[in-house]
Amino acid sequence: MTSSLGRAESLPFLAACRRQPVPYTPIWIMRQAGRYLPEYRRVRSQAEFAALLRSPELAAEVTLQPLRRFPLDAAILFSDIMTPLTGMGVDLSFEPGPVVREPIRTDAAVDALGDLLPERDVPFVLESIRLVRAGLPRTVPLIGFAGGPFTLLCYLVCGRPSKEFGAARSFLYSSPQSAQRLLDRLADAMAAYLRAQAAAGAQALMLFESWAGLLAPHEFERFALRAVRRTVAALRDTAVPLIYYVNQGSALMRCVADLDVDVIGVDWRSPLGVVRQALGPGKAVQGNLDPAALFASPQDLREHAGRVLDQVAGAPGHVFNLGHGIWPETDPDAVARLIDYVHERSSRPAAIGANAT
Amino acid sequence: MTSSLGRAESLPFLAACRRQPVPYTPIWIMRQAGRYLPEYRRVRSQAEFAALLRSPELAAEVTLQPLRRFPLDAAILFSDIMTPLTGMGVDLSFEPGPVVREPIRTDAAVDALGDLLPERDVPFVLESIRLVRAGLPRTVPLIGFAGGPFTLLCYLVCGRPSKEFGAARSFLYSSPQSAQRLLDRLADAMAAYLRAQAAAGAQALMLFESWAGLLAPHEFERFALRAVRRTVAALRDTAVPLIYYVNQGSALMRCVADLDVDVIGVDWRSPLGVVRQALGPGKAVQGNLDPAALFASPQDLREHAGRVLDQVAGAPGHVFNLGHGIWPETDPDAVARLIDYVHERSSRPAAIGANAT
Repeated sequence: MTSSLGRAESLPFLAACRRQPVPYTPIWIMRQAGRYLPEYRRVRSQAEFAALLRSPELAAEVTLQPLRRFPLDAAILFSDIMTPLTGMGVDLSFEPGPVVREPIRTDAAVDALGDLLPERDVPFVLESIRLVRAGLPRTVPLIGFAGGPFTLLCYLVCGRPSKEFGAARSFLYSSPQSAQRLLDRLADAMAAYLRAQAAAGAQALMLFESWAGLLAPHEFERFALRAVRRTVAALRDTAVPLIYYVNQGSALMRCVADLDVDVIGVDWRSPLGVVRQALGPGKAVQGNLDPAALFASPQDLREHAGRVLDQVAGAPGHVFNLGHGIWPETDPDAVARLIDYVHERSSRPAAIGANAT
Repeated sequence: MTSSLGRAESLPFLAACRRQPVPYTPIWIMRQAGRYLPEYRRVRSQAEFAALLRSPELAAEVTLQPLRRFPLDAAILFSDIMTPLTGMGVDLSFEPGPVVREPIRTDAAVDALGDLLPERDVPFVLESIRLVRAGLPRTVPLIGFAGGPFTLLCYLVCGRPSKEFGAARSFLYSSPQSAQRLLDRLADAMAAYLRAQAAAGAQALMLFESWAGLLAPHEFERFALRAVRRTVAALRDTAVPLIYYVNQGSALMRCVADLDVDVIGVDWRSPLGVVRQALGPGKAVQGNLDPAALFASPQDLREHAGRVLDQVAGAPGHVFNLGHGIWPETDPDAVARLIDYVHERSSRPAAIGANAT
């Protein structure tokens, strides 16, 4: 186990998470297992989304699809942030966004949530991880993930996605104690969920705070960050890198600077140079090309991707990614060009020794 | 005209826009003429939204409604940012969001747009302004407004509102010249539209960049800001304060610091202290309480509003507002409490002389 971990740590993605020198900037793509790939659409044409999530074989298959096509530096488990909530007793469907039959807005509803015991409640996720690890080359690490507690609260309180998540935001203001009670439950459940993923073989863990941008810094700290601190504190002994993705978080970077994670993932709105200045030297960054840039001409795409790389200027601790999930309409060839360009442009074989001091 | 302007300039809202001392912090509320008011809902029960927009009498009536109820420091014309586009030949409906029958995605479609001659194409808007001015007490100034060119482009390219406005964003990347061509047309039309509003009696002019937050700073400067500079340059001799509202603009404040407007309006995500630091001393700020805070208890609401005031610490150049439009579910009594609290808490009769130096 130790020797395998030793080899794994030298993989560019894991090294970049640890702010160690790398031979080139590693890249993976949020939603890389998804609808822009014809092979994914073929699987989906034969299985409902919810069924795909619960089938270890199919989930592993679509997780591996982009790795067969592209020289990506990491795989990410195909799943949905809402999946573990079904294990806590939430009645959930996809229409196609997640719909919660009975929104949670009272202490009684919070207390009615079950605890999450991953091996009992979501064994299919852990089995997917084992299958993916068995199918992945050793050179490609696997990322497990969960939703940030606040982001999960947004869906649970509103019942269905909405542009402003008004019911969730007014719940924070009108019932702050109940909101914190719900967040504590979710924080503990996501800690258990992520621990189980690491035990099953996930080599990095990512928390998606997709709705961080709904909150001003004061409310972000009081609700979202307080909860994620609780999750992260329970994960510190797992020894895999932790990534916190803060969508629309331009105003929140100083808040997360002292969160005990290895990597902050950011959307495309903040230049990475500004982000790194706000975060300080203790964090790696992941991001942050606008997913829309994949619709530019090949020459323009290189310029846009180059601008992201220039913001980091070769300093250790950068994982290239989009700032948000890839769009279903994207041409896979543009993805191939992006990956090649990032690898070529950032390649620094001579720099390893120089940077290793 | 000069003497009436002289009196108007001493009104707190207009003085705050000019960063002059004020006896108390002025406040108005985005969407203050709207669905949270039962008297508005009564008018709407008898007229379609589109009809309301085109009726000078009804538009003036709903503009004046909140002023009869609350001691607000400004009125804002009841209209919609899409209204002038109908005057340019766009076939528009509301379902309830704006829907453009033929999205604009080619140079030919851009060239087919008509020029906007406001007195010919949207006379009902100008007549509304005259009616509102006749019905408003002299102590309450009237704000006219238009959409930012980029925000209008989002609707015109996508055809209907969407969470990500993907078609608009990919249009910028795939067809940057066509996008700039469309933005130039919109910038010129909005300049003509706002000039006409000022001539009809609007005492301040606001540009709503509701979708600024879709763009990274580089694209914001290349598209949105370039266009709004063109609009603003054509308005500089109107002698009324200009306000640029930058929604989700936490990463964009440095970009707009040298835009030639008097006031930057900001959403609730960035603390005003941070905003003012990025903007420098040359701009007043407008905002920025989270609309969700109106769902807090009266005591908590005071704390949230007090935190906004504390960020500015009594310095000149602050117009209190929400960070986004008021929600239809809001209790009008909470609005009344907010306005009273902002006025009381910021009241500084002795400070006028002291600050006037």
